[in-house]
Amino acid sequence: MEFFDCISLAKAQTLINNVLPECTTAVEETELIEALGRIVAEDIAAADHLPPFNRSTVDGYAVLSRDTFSAGEGAPVMLDIIGEVFMGQSADYTIVSGQAVIVPTGGMLPAGADGVVMLEHAEQSDQETLLVVKPIAPGENMVAKGEDIKPGTVFVAAGTRLTAAEIGALAACGIARVKVRRRLTVGIISTGDEVVDVIAVPENGQVRDINSYTLAAMLTAADCQVTRYGITKDNYADLLAAIGKAAGENQLVLVSGGSSVGARDHTVQVIEELGRNKVIFHGLAVRPGKPTIFGLIDHVPVFGLPGHPVAAMTICQMVVMPLVSRLQGSGSCKAGWRIPARLTRNCASAPGRDDFLRVKLIWQAGEYRAEPVLGKSGLISVMTQADGVVHVPADSSGLYAGDVVLVEVMREA
Amino acid sequence: MEFFDCISLAKAQTLINNVLPECTTAVEETELIEALGRIVAEDIAAADHLPPFNRSTVDGYAVLSRDTFSAGEGAPVMLDIIGEVFMGQSADYTIVSGQAVIVPTGGMLPAGADGVVMLEHAEQSDQETLLVVKPIAPGENMVAKGEDIKPGTVFVAAGTRLTAAEIGALAACGIARVKVRRRLTVGIISTGDEVVDVIAVPENGQVRDINSYTLAAMLTAADCQVTRYGITKDNYADLLAAIGKAAGENQLVLVSGGSSVGARDHTVQVIEELGRNKVIFHGLAVRPGKPTIFGLIDHVPVFGLPGHPVAAMTICQMVVMPLVSRLQGSGSCKAGWRIPARLTRNCASAPGRDDFLRVKLIWQAGEYRAEPVLGKSGLISVMTQADGVVHVPADSSGLYAGDVVLVEVMREA
Repeated sequence: MEFFDCISLAKAQTLINNVLPECTTAVEETELIEALGRIVAEDIAAADHLPPFNRSTVDGYAVLSRDTFSAGEGAPVMLDIIGEVFMGQSADYTIVSGQAVIVPTGGMLPAGADGVVMLEHAEQSDQETLLVVKPIAPGENMVAKGEDIKPGTVFVAAGTRLTAAEIGALAACGIARVKVRRRLTVGIISTGDEVVDVIAVPENGQVRDINSYTLAAMLTAADCQVTRYGITKDNYADLLAAIGKAAGENQLVLVSGGSSVGARDHTVQVIEELGRNKVIFHGLAVRPGKPTIFGLIDHVPVFGLPGHPVAAMTICQMVVMPLVSRLQGSGSCKAGWRIPARLTRNCASAPGRDDFLRVKLIWQAGEYRAEPVLGKSGLISVMTQADGVVHVPADSSGLYAGDVVLVEVMREA
Repeated sequence: MEFFDCISLAKAQTLINNVLPECTTAVEETELIEALGRIVAEDIAAADHLPPFNRSTVDGYAVLSRDTFSAGEGAPVMLDIIGEVFMGQSADYTIVSGQAVIVPTGGMLPAGADGVVMLEHAEQSDQETLLVVKPIAPGENMVAKGEDIKPGTVFVAAGTRLTAAEIGALAACGIARVKVRRRLTVGIISTGDEVVDVIAVPENGQVRDINSYTLAAMLTAADCQVTRYGITKDNYADLLAAIGKAAGENQLVLVSGGSSVGARDHTVQVIEELGRNKVIFHGLAVRPGKPTIFGLIDHVPVFGLPGHPVAAMTICQMVVMPLVSRLQGSGSCKAGWRIPARLTRNCASAPGRDDFLRVKLIWQAGEYRAEPVLGKSGLISVMTQADGVVHVPADSSGLYAGDVVLVEVMREA
């Protein structure tokens, strides 16, 4: 008994990609130290050379490398020490053949020097005389000015989500403020005549709202700015008001619940009315997640997600998140790391339908095992025990115990 | 030329574990919706049954399953429909043999019913008469009260870092406020006579501060409360004042830089003076990261990290983070997911020393390749191009191209 025609996951992804632009979020500036997790809005290029001067990588003596070529344990090369460079100070020397200058690790090389003899490979016979016992190659034990990065080099690309590494690179290049994408605003609505808030004591027939909490957490973790619009009853007027408000105030709206046929119809009708018939699809050949709805209200994408919490989370991760990533300006649909793991049991899957199997990862005998987290009813355990999701594509009739699958992780190890 | 005796990574980890208690952070309460990423302070048990009533998982008819055992396409079983249950409403019926009640997906089952016949497998010949054409087993198409979770069951353990899944589970169980560990306070100091802040234009011999940015970002990402104490010159008095202040105001202190011998000595001397000789180790047989210092000032752990940014990040991830995790109450030393990947080139490693090799992960031909990110000088590229770290243990003399290694990821895919 089908209430609507399901479309394939691939078709749904194409439809979503086709109707929405690459990025809708505006640009804002943020302090570098606040920029962790933000998405860079423009390519960032270095303004100067890095390092800004020839820099020693060891404690030792700056020299002309060719002066050392003949040096050996039994045949030291004698050089004149003409001075010392201190950390953070300019090297106000120019050395010529036969001369050396003392430099610390990270110190500036004097003009003329093209390498550094390590402390270990030389000996000062007196304050002004150095005996070098090992040759160095040109450029040895130093980093040349601009060797790491040259002016104009793009070292952080637009769309990058900033981690500690890029923040360090930006600091190195003197970029104290960064142009980033404004956080995507997302409105979340829970629906259902049976749904009550977490603080309520459910009466007979009622259950507490789960989806607005899980969805808010997932979108917050993806650096969105989330507004929860509470719980709406399964009737047309209430849903019309709630979705209209959320779509007017956000760049993306997620409506979850309404697992009954009538409630699904309400969501579809609201999108039809507010969006002027812009229901893009209604029903996915995906398990879990069949009763998924997608449409546009003006230019705001609206998803109707399943009421079942595991299904809502799965569709959020697999269908909504790639769009979020794109709307945030973070390149094309990005997935998390996929961890190869050996399946511990057979898992049937109907051909023609994409299945998302939640699994627990167990490290054992030098590899990960993927243990399916099953149970018709084990809502809490399916939610809390799963580490990630395995995608069983539509052309597969299932997976066998021992198969190596790819697990998209959803949580820390 | 060794300035200090290096100890092994394993020995260092044992010393760190032995001198510090499991957890130092106090407990505080937070709203559930704010709890993402926080660490749960106590085991959390369910107060009630979940679901709180026998609940239908389909649209259909609640019945006594044994009434249907003889049903078949050619031999329908006739039942009396005595009413309908609506979503979110109490099922104020008790059914006996021969009776059925209409129930929606998620609706409450009436007393007496032990299963639900799907709409598809029955037909209403009139408003009060149902013809069932397929038998159901006891418990079919329903979740029994408490079948998912029973009162007293611990469903989120102390030490868990909350993700969307646990937040949903807590919402389901009516837990609107959660006892979590207070954020670990971490003080970060950069040192070096050559180091200037990101907003400065470095003069000859100077470089910009990188480490206080990368370390702050890493600790912030790990849900710590970070205070940066700016840049301190490499002299004993300044370092004494800065470390003393940071240790007085935080639960963990990271001092980075001071890559010259004298600067390292200052950090050691400050810990000796303020901590009354509690320098625990000084020098690690690890690359990168040899000049790592660890000690205690009162009960506050203090790390002296290398000045080289990649080395500082590596030691922070591999040595400091497991301690952070433990101080936060998040169980024993946790690592990130390790992704098996095939090394693309040979990498030598000195036996007796643990090496941490930064690699880029490339998905190719159905597996990950781990491409070492090398370069004596490529500071920025080593920082921004690496996706993770491979640990080459002390008893290994290196890795070969084609070896499958485990990559601890440091960033999103």
